[in-house]
Amino acid sequence: MALPDTEGAETRLDPRVERSRAAIIEAAQAAVLENGYRGLTIEDVSVRSGVAKTTIYRHWPDRAALLVDVFESLSTSQMVPDTGDVDADLRTALLGLAEGLRNAAWAGAMPSLIEAGERDDELRPLVVSFVERRRKPMRDRIAAAVRTGELPFDVEPDLAVAMLSGPLFYRRFITRQPVSPRVVEAIVSTVLAGLRA
Amino acid sequence: MALPDTEGAETRLDPRVERSRAAIIEAAQAAVLENGYRGLTIEDVSVRSGVAKTTIYRHWPDRAALLVDVFESLSTSQMVPDTGDVDADLRTALLGLAEGLRNAAWAGAMPSLIEAGERDDELRPLVVSFVERRRKPMRDRIAAAVRTGELPFDVEPDLAVAMLSGPLFYRRFITRQPVSPRVVEAIVSTVLAGLRA
Repeated sequence: MALPDTEGAETRLDPRVERSRAAIIEAAQAAVLENGYRGLTIEDVSVRSGVAKTTIYRHWPDRAALLVDVFESLSTSQMVPDTGDVDADLRTALLGLAEGLRNAAWAGAMPSLIEAGERDDELRPLVVSFVERRRKPMRDRIAAAVRTGELPFDVEPDLAVAMLSGPLFYRRFITRQPVSPRVVEAIVSTVLAGLRA
Repeated sequence: MALPDTEGAETRLDPRVERSRAAIIEAAQAAVLENGYRGLTIEDVSVRSGVAKTTIYRHWPDRAALLVDVFESLSTSQMVPDTGDVDADLRTALLGLAEGLRNAAWAGAMPSLIEAGERDDELRPLVVSFVERRRKPMRDRIAAAVRTGELPFDVEPDLAVAMLSGPLFYRRFITRQPVSPRVVEAIVSTVLAGLRA
């Protein structure tokens, strides 16, 4: 959200910009994972990355903008397939989500995202829009299944996403229990059966 | 976990202990809500409460013990009724949970609990056992319904709790959407129908 498109002409002309951007993001990731979102200060990122504060401020006007780019950099794409079989597609998507919750860097940063959304009035809208973008593909896939009649007309895609993804986040972050493929399978089959009942 | 039973003879004989305990817990709550679990230091609690550090250490050997008592003090009892109608009982329990997620002090402290469970090896087992105690009544109610045949024999109470509660936690802490009675109703009816399908 701060730098120009890294594929753009400007960046290609100056690879130093790309290198310092990568160093800043890496330092900011480490700061967040170590000390939570409050631990992310431009001062600390400057020390960790060796990049001058003025350079950091040129790319990110404040730590909120930097925090959002840290989350963006940690996230992998969350595509949901559309094979025409919504059950299989949601199963695939949720197995991918569970894999991410088990192993991906974004999952380790999620508690800081949750805390930032709770405590920081400036960060809250950024957190909400980040999460919104991540879950849009699954909601769109469910909406498409409602349109084609694969799911009943009264299914609310937004609530269905919460019923499918919510139990996985709950186990990962609240009860700290495994989110195994077996658990995913039980959730998908129960919720889809319930939506069709 | 630190002080003797406040109904006990010792405490009755010394109301100062009760007063200082209340002041310490109140200061610790404020510290956690303001600065997260990392913000909870015995030093800061001493300054906020006006109670000497040595007195605090006499009751709580370390900040981990104090943090657990902060969460205990914020939590209200989460009883689940047993009227013989498991659907109605779970609906009642989840409406209560949603109300807590909307308004209770413990919900505001939950992001700090999540962060502590993620980052702090010493606090993690305390967080897990705290959460475990909170959700036990709902799991027991579901297990009872399985025994009486109100729910199918293959329902796993632990997973069922995640499917019922998880979407509410997800909306409250991840997507920051409302957890209204209408949402509770949709989740309870979908999940119970799915479990019986």
